[in-house]
Amino acid sequence: MWYENKLTNKLGVKYPIIQAGMAGGTTTPELVAAVSNAGGLGTLGAGYMSSEQTRESIRKIKQLTDQPFAVNLFIPETPNVLEEEVEQANEWLRPFREALKIAETPEVNEITAATFEKQIEIIMEEQVPVCSFTFGLPSKVMVQQLKEKGIMLVGTATTVEEAKANEAIGMDMVVMQGSEAGGHRGTFLGSFDEAMIGTMALIPQAVDQVHIPVIAAGGISDGRGVLAALVLGAQGVQMGTAFLTSSESGVHMQYKEAILNTKEDQLVVTSTFSGKPARGIRNDFITKMEKYEKELPAYPIQNTLTKPIRSEAGKQNRPEWISMWCGQNPRSCKQQSASELVAAIIVQVEQIINGQKSKA
Amino acid sequence: MWYENKLTNKLGVKYPIIQAGMAGGTTTPELVAAVSNAGGLGTLGAGYMSSEQTRESIRKIKQLTDQPFAVNLFIPETPNVLEEEVEQANEWLRPFREALKIAETPEVNEITAATFEKQIEIIMEEQVPVCSFTFGLPSKVMVQQLKEKGIMLVGTATTVEEAKANEAIGMDMVVMQGSEAGGHRGTFLGSFDEAMIGTMALIPQAVDQVHIPVIAAGGISDGRGVLAALVLGAQGVQMGTAFLTSSESGVHMQYKEAILNTKEDQLVVTSTFSGKPARGIRNDFITKMEKYEKELPAYPIQNTLTKPIRSEAGKQNRPEWISMWCGQNPRSCKQQSASELVAAIIVQVEQIINGQKSKA
Repeated sequence: MWYENKLTNKLGVKYPIIQAGMAGGTTTPELVAAVSNAGGLGTLGAGYMSSEQTRESIRKIKQLTDQPFAVNLFIPETPNVLEEEVEQANEWLRPFREALKIAETPEVNEITAATFEKQIEIIMEEQVPVCSFTFGLPSKVMVQQLKEKGIMLVGTATTVEEAKANEAIGMDMVVMQGSEAGGHRGTFLGSFDEAMIGTMALIPQAVDQVHIPVIAAGGISDGRGVLAALVLGAQGVQMGTAFLTSSESGVHMQYKEAILNTKEDQLVVTSTFSGKPARGIRNDFITKMEKYEKELPAYPIQNTLTKPIRSEAGKQNRPEWISMWCGQNPRSCKQQSASELVAAIIVQVEQIINGQKSKA
Repeated sequence: MWYENKLTNKLGVKYPIIQAGMAGGTTTPELVAAVSNAGGLGTLGAGYMSSEQTRESIRKIKQLTDQPFAVNLFIPETPNVLEEEVEQANEWLRPFREALKIAETPEVNEITAATFEKQIEIIMEEQVPVCSFTFGLPSKVMVQQLKEKGIMLVGTATTVEEAKANEAIGMDMVVMQGSEAGGHRGTFLGSFDEAMIGTMALIPQAVDQVHIPVIAAGGISDGRGVLAALVLGAQGVQMGTAFLTSSESGVHMQYKEAILNTKEDQLVVTSTFSGKPARGIRNDFITKMEKYEKELPAYPIQNTLTKPIRSEAGKQNRPEWISMWCGQNPRSCKQQSASELVAAIIVQVEQIINGQKSKA
């Protein structure tokens, strides 16, 4: 069958469909389990979780499914905290905090890799079947340790060079994140601007240059995108936005509605929310803050500074000040359950293949 | 067969493969005729041609092929010439002119639509089978006149909104230019930045929103891209960079070699050469001029100002100062004849379809 390949075989899933490990509470255990139970690979987005939250969520997922699932981690970045820069950013953020009645400015502690290291331990202890990474590469030692536990490793790349780096360190497969993708750019070598490669161009070039299976991400919301990715040489797809609008996703209802009502030309790549470029729906926060973009603290410092604003804006139903990450194919997204989405994709892929057969 | 559809039927071609109407001498009559003779649709890029050059090229093409071909025109833009702005730009361009020993600064006359109107007349007189447009829409009257002559009209769009505008004015089909595409952005409504939609996301959304056939462009360099575009719902593809490296193309040998040696992450969208954003290979000219980008004269004024530099740099074999437009899939481009490229695409598409059949 069209869905049987090295990737589905390695992951132990039926369909080559991975739900992206979107961080920030989107990937509820219910969503992860629903995708895995439907034959895809659900992913817990543990990027911003504490080690305890990570463990708890993994255990919850295990209660809800006996199928393979993944946990996605962010490779830690530990920039120096520059006090002046933080003060200046806090000054720019003050109007938002005041309007939301947030009394305190968040504390920015020295950034360490401690949580990440604990998460890796938990993943090994809990024998999570698949571990995926964004924002760079884990150390060789970590890769070795995880592999010894039989954990499948999935990296993220935005250029062929990054794909090769993933292969060299021992990743079992690599997600190629096209420029269409919603959320943070996974670029970790070279310039963010020049690593904005569209999926249509990125996949065949990566497939020709690495030997590990390639997973296409960015702009894929339905069966047409899934089959197109396979035709380009990918062995699977990773979809974020399409699962974000599913009923099991944990995002704010107004954010979900914003995706269902936005258009492909209302999105913007911005680092105003976190200090790292990410694609989302243009809103008032971005429009007000983008002029300072180059002077804001680095990721994840800016992310820490805006966290209370995003969180409080969510509670007060003010989507104009929350980060609404979204890929460039929102018009194909629907409100449905994750299992309905997976089933609809399979039906659509098979319709297209049958159509081709009848014309051949 | 997989290649028989409304688009090939309307265009009267065998394969749904259009060679993009790249301006600036790239699309020699030999290239256009070779593509058409191979079963695709060759396109004369007449965007920067005088009316006489346009007529001459059309007649030459007719001598070389009896198959349908297209002429691509640029919808004229007529910005006011602001003397101060031009003087400032000339000042910034002086070092290049001096190094190349260019004595005169080019004259910038008031910009009119006269050439475009003459080109339209010539296209009707010469009964060119297909006329395509970039940078906007022709007037309703022109559309009517061209249609009365039985000329097929192809528009260019970078967003769904632009696709709808093309349909509304009466275009027979529309090229959806994804962000991967090399050369100038065809955006004519809204912001250039927010209209950088990847092909993978753009095609299905356009297909769902317009009734005319959609042609996919951007990032397509081989059979994998062609079939992926059809799977996404496009009825054909338009390929630029892949034909640029063909033996019949008229580009400078060093430019051709630069494409064959560049990588997907060495490209940049720049308006330094023409005043309008275009994707090409980063070189010294771009790196030196990009800091002035927002203060340069509008297209086509800046294009006029840099023309002698680009032309002389070509003659003096200095590719670092010529515009080397290139899409994001250069690694799949080869040096071969246009007919070899078309034939290789067909073989590859059929291999993929047969592979799918055997797995079904």
